[in-house]
Amino acid sequence: MDTPPKLRLYVEASLADGASLPLATEQAHYLMHVMRAAAGTEVAVFNGRDGEWRARIEPVGKRAVTLVVTAPLRPQAVEPDLWLLFAPVKRARIDFIVEKATELGVSALLPVWTQRTVMSRVNEERLASIAIEAAEQSERLTVPEVRAARDMTAVLADWPAGRPLIVLDEGGGGRPIAEALSELPAGPAAVLVGPEGGFAKSELDALRALSFAVPVGLGPRILRADTAVLAALACCQAIRGDWRQQPAIRPSSPSN
Amino acid sequence: MDTPPKLRLYVEASLADGASLPLATEQAHYLMHVMRAAAGTEVAVFNGRDGEWRARIEPVGKRAVTLVVTAPLRPQAVEPDLWLLFAPVKRARIDFIVEKATELGVSALLPVWTQRTVMSRVNEERLASIAIEAAEQSERLTVPEVRAARDMTAVLADWPAGRPLIVLDEGGGGRPIAEALSELPAGPAAVLVGPEGGFAKSELDALRALSFAVPVGLGPRILRADTAVLAALACCQAIRGDWRQQPAIRPSSPSN
Repeated sequence: MDTPPKLRLYVEASLADGASLPLATEQAHYLMHVMRAAAGTEVAVFNGRDGEWRARIEPVGKRAVTLVVTAPLRPQAVEPDLWLLFAPVKRARIDFIVEKATELGVSALLPVWTQRTVMSRVNEERLASIAIEAAEQSERLTVPEVRAARDMTAVLADWPAGRPLIVLDEGGGGRPIAEALSELPAGPAAVLVGPEGGFAKSELDALRALSFAVPVGLGPRILRADTAVLAALACCQAIRGDWRQQPAIRPSSPSN
Repeated sequence: MDTPPKLRLYVEASLADGASLPLATEQAHYLMHVMRAAAGTEVAVFNGRDGEWRARIEPVGKRAVTLVVTAPLRPQAVEPDLWLLFAPVKRARIDFIVEKATELGVSALLPVWTQRTVMSRVNEERLASIAIEAAEQSERLTVPEVRAARDMTAVLADWPAGRPLIVLDEGGGGRPIAEALSELPAGPAAVLVGPEGGFAKSELDALRALSFAVPVGLGPRILRADTAVLAALACCQAIRGDWRQQPAIRPSSPSN
């Protein structure tokens, strides 16, 4: 079998043999000018629903670019149903959280306002484009959904049944994370990380009282919010997520 | 008991009751001008050997600042003996690796040259100062040692006995990380992560043949080198490190 194309693109259109995909201006610019692709270059495409397909670049005008789908690469597969609830932090670190959470296989990103959140707004559109780019590079078959920022209390008030909420309890009230995760059943879950200043005492008390909350601790050192997000997500995937599988596509290794 | 000081400083001098610590110019500048501390302000100090102490700022001249040690805060404790071997990556991401690895409790950072490493030099001095700052903020009692960059083959040629090397094998040849870690005995260990382009095939073959190597996998997605470092270190601390302990100092929580 041929090696998969190096370029990889998320598209919204449906994918099937012979389908024609007119690209948006930014994607066309990215392919032709940033990545310096040419007509005939092969690209892998995915849309989160129809698996991954091989496609070919067909120039159709001065700036317009269309991809033509030529062959299937991978069928759509079930991915972990893991949400991340996080308090918005300043720009470089929130971008980082979205990039890393996407690589680590989160299915939805929910920015939540807490009492000590310093930021006052979130650019969900920018976060969504960071998530798309990270999904393209990490060989995911989906892009995590970036929800609109809401008050944490509102999100928790209509919490779905059957989804345990792993709360990073920096107050020392949680169980060691590996122990707590190894006892959680398989299925949907969510991770909640507070802002740099931590949760307020009243928030922590309310969180600990929730029937679906699983307070956990990340050891004796104080972690920044972004470090805590990554560490908790990595533990979730390693201990109860999909890290028991092998890589879907082996990276191409020249035999040197 | 009083709350510990908010300011925290790594010093090289020995610490004992009543000891006088003349600060280097940069530390004095940081305390007085960046953090806007004043004479009499309390500071927590640690040196990696004598535990953590309470100290007080004594101005002794126009620019000179001396700390006077006033009382013990925490005794020195044993920390995990976990090395990180990593291929240097570009500046923002290498700084990030050092910051996060320090928060995650690594004891030594060993930059190693591999066949596909793109960078050609490492500023170990800058990395050491990032490690100090991250250690101060994470409440560690030590600062990880930053070793001079060496060829990976040279480092592996004189590898110490009794220290398993957890190799992130992005070629799919490793066991799932949680499974492999749960079988490793307690004690010294090291994590090895390759460059963005991965290890060369000949390197991976040589690594897999080492008696002390434990090749592991991080699931079906392709992770950036910096993400892989963090994920592996978090799993090490959660599954076989010190994350079964509670935080050493509970963050101060105003009762709001």
